[in-house]
Amino acid sequence: MAVQIKSKDVAAMKPQEFRELVRKGEWTGHTLLACRNYAQNNLAIVPRDYAFEFLLFCMRNPRPCPVVDVTEPGSPHPMRVAPTADLRTDLPRYRVFKNGELVDEPTNVTKYWRDDLVAFLIGCSATFDWALRTANVDFRLLGAYTSNIQCVPAGPFYGPMVVSCRTFKTHEDAVRAIQIGSRYLVSHGPPIHIGDPSSIGIGDVTKPDQAVINPLPAPGASEVILTWGCGITPQTTALAAKLPILITHKGGHMFINDLLVEQTANL
Amino acid sequence: MAVQIKSKDVAAMKPQEFRELVRKGEWTGHTLLACRNYAQNNLAIVPRDYAFEFLLFCMRNPRPCPVVDVTEPGSPHPMRVAPTADLRTDLPRYRVFKNGELVDEPTNVTKYWRDDLVAFLIGCSATFDWALRTANVDFRLLGAYTSNIQCVPAGPFYGPMVVSCRTFKTHEDAVRAIQIGSRYLVSHGPPIHIGDPSSIGIGDVTKPDQAVINPLPAPGASEVILTWGCGITPQTTALAAKLPILITHKGGHMFINDLLVEQTANL
Repeated sequence: MAVQIKSKDVAAMKPQEFRELVRKGEWTGHTLLACRNYAQNNLAIVPRDYAFEFLLFCMRNPRPCPVVDVTEPGSPHPMRVAPTADLRTDLPRYRVFKNGELVDEPTNVTKYWRDDLVAFLIGCSATFDWALRTANVDFRLLGAYTSNIQCVPAGPFYGPMVVSCRTFKTHEDAVRAIQIGSRYLVSHGPPIHIGDPSSIGIGDVTKPDQAVINPLPAPGASEVILTWGCGITPQTTALAAKLPILITHKGGHMFINDLLVEQTANL
Repeated sequence: MAVQIKSKDVAAMKPQEFRELVRKGEWTGHTLLACRNYAQNNLAIVPRDYAFEFLLFCMRNPRPCPVVDVTEPGSPHPMRVAPTADLRTDLPRYRVFKNGELVDEPTNVTKYWRDDLVAFLIGCSATFDWALRTANVDFRLLGAYTSNIQCVPAGPFYGPMVVSCRTFKTHEDAVRAIQIGSRYLVSHGPPIHIGDPSSIGIGDVTKPDQAVINPLPAPGASEVILTWGCGITPQTTALAAKLPILITHKGGHMFINDLLVEQTANL
C-alpha cells in the first residue's frame, strides 16, 4: 500500500469510507477501534439449505446470537443496516471452512461466493463497548470463553454458549452496564451471569479462549465480573455442524454497518 | 358445556388452566381479557418450505411482526414460551386457509396438522395493553387499519403494514406509552407514527378494518393518536402469498403463553 494507514485514522472514519478502504485491500487489520461509535457485526455465511435452522438457532438464543440482518440467498448486500456494502469484500479478514475444516483466511471471499449463500450479521460486543465508553463506564474486557451453558438447539445447530467477561471496579458501574445493556438487545443485551464465572464453567478468567491482551491481569477481589453472551457462539455452532461451506469473519475483523451505536438502542 | 364460564372467571385464570379449558372445548370466546397480565400471541402456521422466508419477513419487519417463538417442523409445542401447550388445540378459534381461501374456522386444527408445519407465535397488542393498564396509562384502543406503509419484503411475502391506533387524552400519557413500548419490543415496541394517521393512509380513524367497539367515537381534537405495528400484518401477508395451507388464530382469539407481561420486558 502506498500510504501507511494508522489506527487513529480509521477510528475517525465513517463506515462507508472505511469499507471502501477495506474493499481495496488497504486495511487488513482488526476493527476493534475502527469507526468510533458505529455498530460492528459478526458474520456467518451459510448455504440456503441450512439458513432456516440457523436463523431459528439464533432466534432461540438471542443473547449470544442477536440477528441484525439477513441477506437474500445469493445477495451480498445487507439491505437493513448497510445497503451499499458488499459482504464479500468489506471485512478485513475472513475464515472459510469446508466440512468443518479451515481452508482459507482470505481478505475477500469473492471466489467462494455462490448463488445459494445467505449472510447473517450478528450483534457484536464491540458495539456495546462503544456504548459503555460513551457513558463513561469504567470497565475492562477480559476475553471470550466457552461456558458450560448449553444453547437451545435448532436442527443441526447445538453446543455451548461462548461468552465474554467484563470486570468493573465499582458496583455502580456494573449496575449501569446492566442498564445500558438492556437498551442494546442487538448487541447481546444484558449480561447472562453476575459474579464468579466458575459457576458457568470458566475455571480461570485470566485464561480466555480469545484474549484481548496477553498476559491478562487477574481482576481484584472487590471487582464485579459480568458475563455476556458472545457473538462467537453462532460461528462455533455452525462450525461444529460441519456445513459443506461456512464463511465467517476472522476474530476481531468485524463488519462495520451504517448505524451509529445509539441508533441501535431499543432496535 | 355443563357450567357457564364467565369472562371474569377466565380473567383470573393462569395460562395453563385457561388453555386446558380451551383444549376441552369449554371456552371458544375471545381472549382479550383472559389471564390478566399474561402475554398473548398471534399465530401463523406455514409449511416448512415457506418457513425461512416467512421468518425472514418477520425479522425484517420487527415492529408489526416481533417473533416470540417458532416451533420445530411438525411439533405443535412452543418450547420457549409455553412448552406444555399444544398449538393445535389451545386457541379458542382458528382460521384455515388453502391457496388463500378461507376453508374453515374450527376450534382446533388437529385434523389439518402435518409433519411439515411450522408454527410462529408473534407478539400481540393485547400484551402491550396490559402493560399500559398496569402503569395506569389512560388510553383508548381504536382498532386495526391497513396503512400505506409497505413492509420490507422477503421471498413471496410483501404488502402493506397493518397497524393499530390508540388515542391518549394527555401528552403525558402518550409519552409514557412510548417509554413503556420501548421496553416491550416483543409486543410491537414503540409506535411507528405519532399524530394524524391520515399521513400513513388512514383516512378515517373511526372506521377501522377491525373495530374493538362499534360505532367508534371520534377522538377529541386535543387527544394524541399513536400508531403501532400490528400482529395482523404477518397473517395478511401470508394470506396474500396464497400458501397451499395457512393456519392462523381467528381475530381476538389469541394464544396465551406462560409469561407474565413483565417477564417479556426487554426480552
